[in-house]
Amino acid sequence: MATHQLTEKAQGKYHYTIGPYTEPVLKVRPGDTIVVETRDAFEGKIKDEKTRPSKVLEVPFLNPQSGPIYVEGAAKGDALAVRIDAIKPRGPQPRGTCCLIPYFGGLTGTDRITFPYEPFIGTIGTSPQIDSINSLTAAKHGGNMDLADVCPGATIYFPVKVDGALLYLGDGHAVQGDGEVCGVAIEFATTTTITVNLVKGWELAWPRLENDKFIMSIGSARPMEDAARIAFADLVNWMVSKFGFEKFDAYFILSQVGKVRLANMVDPNYTIGASILKHYLKK
Amino acid sequence: MATHQLTEKAQGKYHYTIGPYTEPVLKVRPGDTIVVETRDAFEGKIKDEKTRPSKVLEVPFLNPQSGPIYVEGAAKGDALAVRIDAIKPRGPQPRGTCCLIPYFGGLTGTDRITFPYEPFIGTIGTSPQIDSINSLTAAKHGGNMDLADVCPGATIYFPVKVDGALLYLGDGHAVQGDGEVCGVAIEFATTTTITVNLVKGWELAWPRLENDKFIMSIGSARPMEDAARIAFADLVNWMVSKFGFEKFDAYFILSQVGKVRLANMVDPNYTIGASILKHYLKK
Amino acid sequence: MATHQLTEKAQGKYHYTIGPYTEPVLKVRPGDTIVVETRDAFEGKIKDEKTRPSKVLEVPFLNPQSGPIYVEGAAKGDALAVRIDAIKPRGPQPRGTCCLIPYFGGLTGTDRITFPYEPFIGTIGTSPQIDSINSLTAAKHGGNMDLADVCPGATIYFPVKVDGALLYLGDGHAVQGDGEVCGVAIEFATTTTITVNLVKGWELAWPRLENDKFIMSIGSARPMEDAARIAFADLVNWMVSKFGFEKFDAYFILSQVGKVRLANMVDPNYTIGASILKHYLKK
Amino acid sequence: MATHQLTEKAQGKYHYTIGPYTEPVLKVRPGDTIVVETRDAFEGKIKDEKTRPSKVLEVPFLNPQSGPIYVEGAAKGDALAVRIDAIKPRGPQPRGTCCLIPYFGGLTGTDRITFPYEPFIGTIGTSPQIDSINSLTAAKHGGNMDLADVCPGATIYFPVKVDGALLYLGDGHAVQGDGEVCGVAIEFATTTTITVNLVKGWELAWPRLENDKFIMSIGSARPMEDAARIAFADLVNWMVSKFGFEKFDAYFILSQVGKVRLANMVDPNYTIGASILKHYLKK
Repeated sequence: MATHQLTEKAQGKYHYTIGPYTEPVLKVRPGDTIVVETRDAFEGKIKDEKTRPSKVLEVPFLNPQSGPIYVEGAAKGDALAVRIDAIKPRGPQPRGTCCLIPYFGGLTGTDRITFPYEPFIGTIGTSPQIDSINSLTAAKHGGNMDLADVCPGATIYFPVKVDGALLYLGDGHAVQGDGEVCGVAIEFATTTTITVNLVKGWELAWPRLENDKFIMSIGSARPMEDAARIAFADLVNWMVSKFGFEKFDAYFILSQVGKVRLANMVDPNYTIGASILKHYLKK
Repeated sequence: MATHQLTEKAQGKYHYTIGPYTEPVLKVRPGDTIVVETRDAFEGKIKDEKTRPSKVLEVPFLNPQSGPIYVEGAAKGDALAVRIDAIKPRGPQPRGTCCLIPYFGGLTGTDRITFPYEPFIGTIGTSPQIDSINSLTAAKHGGNMDLADVCPGATIYFPVKVDGALLYLGDGHAVQGDGEVCGVAIEFATTTTITVNLVKGWELAWPRLENDKFIMSIGSARPMEDAARIAFADLVNWMVSKFGFEKFDAYFILSQVGKVRLANMVDPNYTIGASILKHYLKK
Repeated sequence: MATHQLTEKAQGKYHYTIGPYTEPVLKVRPGDTIVVETRDAFEGKIKDEKTRPSKVLEVPFLNPQSGPIYVEGAAKGDALAVRIDAIKPRGPQPRGTCCLIPYFGGLTGTDRITFPYEPFIGTIGTSPQIDSINSLTAAKHGGNMDLADVCPGATIYFPVKVDGALLYLGDGHAVQGDGEVCGVAIEFATTTTITVNLVKGWELAWPRLENDKFIMSIGSARPMEDAARIAFADLVNWMVSKFGFEKFDAYFILSQVGKVRLANMVDPNYTIGASILKHYLKK
Repeated sequence: MATHQLTEKAQGKYHYTIGPYTEPVLKVRPGDTIVVETRDAFEGKIKDEKTRPSKVLEVPFLNPQSGPIYVEGAAKGDALAVRIDAIKPRGPQPRGTCCLIPYFGGLTGTDRITFPYEPFIGTIGTSPQIDSINSLTAAKHGGNMDLADVCPGATIYFPVKVDGALLYLGDGHAVQGDGEVCGVAIEFATTTTITVNLVKGWELAWPRLENDKFIMSIGSARPMEDAARIAFADLVNWMVSKFGFEKFDAYFILSQVGKVRLANMVDPNYTIGASILKHYLKK
């Protein structure tokens, strides 16, 4: 069990897309821990309240990712388990950035308001099998899910589609509301510690998440109901295959005690997590 | 301040639709309390596990409503405030009914599982201005929102579109998950106590809800993102008009700390509530 | 076979909603012809280029309907067949009105452009069973479909849900593009001649249309793909039940030679017609 | 003006994805003509009625593309104009393949039915800027649009995002209905002749198409209304920038005489073309 450092400077050639066409920047083994320096989604280009996002940002060169990280032994049909151990602000002057695009600025009139610090990783995923998907889009590989449950204490499971899994992450959020409705959270550079593990022969269709309290399936699609359908259908499948429920019992139970998290309704695909408390999984 | 009884037998002519075409069954004044006997959404027709829903139920004669209740003084442009005081199970043998339609039955194989008792009113609303909307559909008038926050302690605000407001309610749920994914909650007959009040000259576009912790705007539409957009846009408007926020500040703050409840994703319109803790409204 | 006149003045009490709660203004027999004076969707209130729609129009009092027309012998489970015989402009100064709402006006800068005269009836339908649906919305009962194929030579079939069917019509369009994207066609008052017939025991889920060239099923819903799914599924059912196709053959054939008309993408439900040339129905 | 041959064997390394990560297989100059051998979407693996698609096909290795073709001088901000000159069936035994997935087979019971030969190219596009998008998906780069107007006589304009444009094509369809509802057209291998040209400095957001009769903008998204909105908004922009219309005039005119083609409602994004007859563009 080694611990690796992935500095801000040791990035892959293609920062803005998650796919199989890039050489890994780090190789690790199952069980290893990696301390990753992530940059904020604007790559630090918005330095103060006078910076106009429309001047300094250029689509699609947004949301830089750290990686890919190659996990030894990972092969198609496996699942990659990524535990978020810690997320700390990074930089000489730690701070979060938010802006309204294209209405940029505009917040100076607000009385000061204090938000809680509830950090999570907005973008994390493994390489798709043949595509390379920009870092603004969530899909079966994970990606820009903007799901606040991807926080310290959670383990996220991703489908492995290529050798080494090719894990990417970035887009730290200090806090974010359900749906991320203006499209921007409190974006910040982080030092994020993760531990990766491998579940051989567990073939996932979509990402899944687990913490002390619940298990969650994560769907990303448009329209939003399709994201919810994906999430609930996958959660039914999980309850059946791993916890011994009958299919329609699982469906029925979720109808009574299932919970939904709207992760984002602003990215090219919308993301929804459907969950059930672990309490109900014991029979 | 009077207290009224609305028994199961004193129902309006049209049980299955919410609209202006029916004589009121009760007239009350602002501040009055009404104890309403609601029937379950199947009108008690599903008596045991052997009953086939497809045999005893006939669309669209589903989800019977109690009302309309005429509120003296209510006129177009007002808001009706309905506080849910209590929801109790009703009947000689209180119990909840659930079924899968059209897969009816199928639950006998489940080990017994205990659900919490978290009762709420699934369908409640005022009359639309010109339409009469079946009791399975949610829209601007409220209706079949299936929103678990409509529970004791909450006050729901509805637009008044016709004289007397014409309030209807029914469809008690003993518990329900987010989204009500199989389309049926634990349906039960209730004795529900509500207190109605009037806010003169408060013109609402969509229903709103308030409790000790948060304020919430409620949108109903398809696709689901439209329900979420309605809810968030209305919540921004509420924060601006009643709490003194600038429009884009409200938008920004909701992006960081707003919460979303998926009420239902099964009815003709899907319903979403967007909320913010009252804590953030104090400036 | 009688011919009836339904003048502009002989309207029902509720002009702006299609439902069962109104006394018929005319009773006819199957086979009868009715000459209907329809008003334009703005009820003639937009008289010239200086009229501001936002000043003279009041939601939901829009799109006045002529009717209801009671058809003797029509009962739940039947289909009402309405043939459009002719549509003529009406009024001392026949003209069409169009406007952009809320951008009202704005067209004076246009060089003159001549549109073809391709008249059709934008809103036509039978009463729903229990609801009363405003005249701006299309659904299973027909209503505000804005489907350009509802023109002279076409026969439209509607489900009968209440005694007498209760037919309404209005909203003549002199011409309209697919989708009616700005929400307003060339609206005009018409003298429209229709002939009604009854198909006993033909239970329809959604409206259907037939002309010399094709048969068409008509779906109305959101999101738009649901309208298309409804239309194609209904057309498959029609090919199976009336033309002897196997279900999957019909599905396959429509995949190769089916046609789609986007009727409107602006009303509360979007409407799509799916059709197949009669040529392919002969085996 | 040279004519090039692109044989079936001279394919790029990645057949199933359209992106910038592949070496071109052919370099041409603006004005050149290329005769391309395309394979059918199943790569010829479905040989007869006994072949089970679910046995021989493996997602995502579907819909092989010919290319990329590098066009000299093409740079970001240009448009690539591709004229379809001819589409001929190819192979020792030219034939089209269709199947239902996952219901595979099932058509043997059909009486013989003759479909017209109306060939077009289902998938054609230029490389996205940073992503590599699988050949089953349509987006801003074109791709799997399944638009029947991409047929001989049409010129399609694509945004150029990378040096050389990197053009791909494949997925010939002998005929297809609007929406391609079963997901499979009459798929066939073709010899397709195209001529490529370059429009320097014409920055397109989405693909556009032109033929003798009309101009068309092409949107791909979910839900379907978003595809239609993209197409109409882009067509308005085109009418403004190239034909001198005022913005709201264009919007108004399209509302009266615009036409919509539903290309597909089965792929990861749905595709819609919005068009206007050239007749209306002359002022």
